[in-house]
Amino acid sequence: MKKSFKITARDLKSSARTGVITTPHGKIKTPAFAPVASQGTIKGLLHSQLESLGAQLMLVNSYHLYLRPGIETIEKLGGIHSFISWEKPILSDSGGFQIHSLSPLVKVKKQGVEFTSHLDGTRIFLSPEDVIDIQRKLGSDIMMLLDYFLPFPSSEEKTKEAVELTTYWAQRSRTHFLKQESPQLLWGISQGGIFWDQRNKSIEDLMELDFDGYALGGLGIGEPKSQFMDIVEKTNEVLPEARPRYLMGVGYTSDIVKTVAAGVDLFDCVMPTRNARNGTLFTSQGRILIKNKKYENDERPLDDNCSCYTCQNFSRAYLRHLYERQEISSAILNTIHNLYFYLDIFRKIRQAIQSHSYQQFMQSIIDKEEE
Amino acid sequence: MKKSFKITARDLKSSARTGVITTPHGKIKTPAFAPVASQGTIKGLLHSQLESLGAQLMLVNSYHLYLRPGIETIEKLGGIHSFISWEKPILSDSGGFQIHSLSPLVKVKKQGVEFTSHLDGTRIFLSPEDVIDIQRKLGSDIMMLLDYFLPFPSSEEKTKEAVELTTYWAQRSRTHFLKQESPQLLWGISQGGIFWDQRNKSIEDLMELDFDGYALGGLGIGEPKSQFMDIVEKTNEVLPEARPRYLMGVGYTSDIVKTVAAGVDLFDCVMPTRNARNGTLFTSQGRILIKNKKYENDERPLDDNCSCYTCQNFSRAYLRHLYERQEISSAILNTIHNLYFYLDIFRKIRQAIQSHSYQQFMQSIIDKEEE
Repeated sequence: MKKSFKITARDLKSSARTGVITTPHGKIKTPAFAPVASQGTIKGLLHSQLESLGAQLMLVNSYHLYLRPGIETIEKLGGIHSFISWEKPILSDSGGFQIHSLSPLVKVKKQGVEFTSHLDGTRIFLSPEDVIDIQRKLGSDIMMLLDYFLPFPSSEEKTKEAVELTTYWAQRSRTHFLKQESPQLLWGISQGGIFWDQRNKSIEDLMELDFDGYALGGLGIGEPKSQFMDIVEKTNEVLPEARPRYLMGVGYTSDIVKTVAAGVDLFDCVMPTRNARNGTLFTSQGRILIKNKKYENDERPLDDNCSCYTCQNFSRAYLRHLYERQEISSAILNTIHNLYFYLDIFRKIRQAIQSHSYQQFMQSIIDKEEE
Repeated sequence: MKKSFKITARDLKSSARTGVITTPHGKIKTPAFAPVASQGTIKGLLHSQLESLGAQLMLVNSYHLYLRPGIETIEKLGGIHSFISWEKPILSDSGGFQIHSLSPLVKVKKQGVEFTSHLDGTRIFLSPEDVIDIQRKLGSDIMMLLDYFLPFPSSEEKTKEAVELTTYWAQRSRTHFLKQESPQLLWGISQGGIFWDQRNKSIEDLMELDFDGYALGGLGIGEPKSQFMDIVEKTNEVLPEARPRYLMGVGYTSDIVKTVAAGVDLFDCVMPTRNARNGTLFTSQGRILIKNKKYENDERPLDDNCSCYTCQNFSRAYLRHLYERQEISSAILNTIHNLYFYLDIFRKIRQAIQSHSYQQFMQSIIDKEEE
């Protein structure tokens, strides 16, 4: 695989590191956060706003885009970057998670996955090769393998099967991917739930195939925090140091800083954007539920320490008014704030690692979230 | 009243003129368009975006803001400009129209209007003096009188009553307004429907009271176009030249350019913003219904001749995708385009009047709309 990752600094007291992922559409400084743009847009935000918040990449969803507007449409329009007019890196999720969470009647077969479109009931079959082809047509910078995602809790027996099938699909995906020259990066997704033997096996299988990056899938889905951290810390011992690591779907800031200390480089989560639309706002002093009547006459910004457009211009009272009136600008202003909050934490994570103050920074985030 | 309006150029072949309205929060070059921000926000747009589209003022609605968040809240937060963080001119509508269009069980009495809140059924009474006080507390730059609005069609008998009551309320409003020094401007609203005798009487009554500006209310609500134009043209003969004229709620671009030729200086309408959210987009080549399947693979911008952010960056295919997915960014991008389209027409109207080419410009707009 390609030499797409370079480590630029290391924390002396943990496995936290800063690095750079080089993609066909530019570089991503890690640790990095990928805002979720399932349909090719951040909900509530224009690309220009996302860029000025400091986002380095966005995550789009192959499953959603495959169903609508369809891959042929996107291909005709020059691929995903051209279709959505975003010239920075794009990571495309394979859809493994969405097939299992959105579709009724999923049948996992050795040859691939058969499922019903959650939109119109059409029966669809996708092989691991199909999922590669879809993402190739999208032209995303980072492609993800089709994996076999299991909910929590699942038995070890079932988890073992899922790992075996994920490995088998990974082999087929890689073989298919290598048939054509491509500047795109291909990352593996490990499964195994919270069973270390299975997780370890999954990672070893993927490493043998050699991918451009390694994701941890099927975590942060309801398992106890201690087991979650235990697994992430153990993967740190076995994953290749020189490849980027991606913890999928994990969004609590305390989990983020702790797993960065266990060597994780990339995150994505709907938390900042979904919470924004629901009126839950993250601040340096804790969460604010903006619909609360106590903010009715509150002329302070959401967060005195925040430099975002929302906090620089608007009071809690006005934001509450917009939320209560269900104005579109409520979703926009809240999303700007929450995404700024997240992206700013990642800027600070990178700075702290480079200035050898990561331990204090991590502790301050954990202390605030535990308040 | 104050010297708040200055005419800066005149069309030689019509009554079209350019001018400047001076308000406590700055100047408005006329003819001007006031985007509608009923709740203190343009639906789908941030203030910063509205400003960069070239908006000179916004219209807020006293009725909506009185009900929620309440005038006391806005007053505590320093008035409407401070509450919504918009430092440019604000025109507040009196609520006369909303009381009649939104509230069930309206009783118009000599002393004022009694109505039921459309939100929670509370019975509310507002006198003309109350409506002045509400707008004084808001601190808007241009305040509108409480008027007695009638739907179309209404009998001449009923219209005569409405004119008499509007005049009576106008007297009381003016007397009350003059009790306190204020930098705010107070504009009258004439009624009279399409009955010239009534409309003429209404205007004469208001002129006798002397207001900072004169609005035409109760037009563009379903009456035949020829009668509508006839009335506007006749008002042009009687309204004082030296005061700004405001045609409320009229939004078809052909009506706008024709009534500018009859001396109208100010307009407001929800058309560009509401249509944007419904996927109807205005272009120099006519309207586009973006949900139409024929745009599925259309890589052209909405309008080749448009310089807005939407047209400079995105294809019809992507805009259709966002609209079909009901993404918030669909409303945002469409609103940017439609408001840019409207504000650009007003820029061109002003340029055309000043460069003595208004007749050709007006005809080009009429020809396009009639296509």
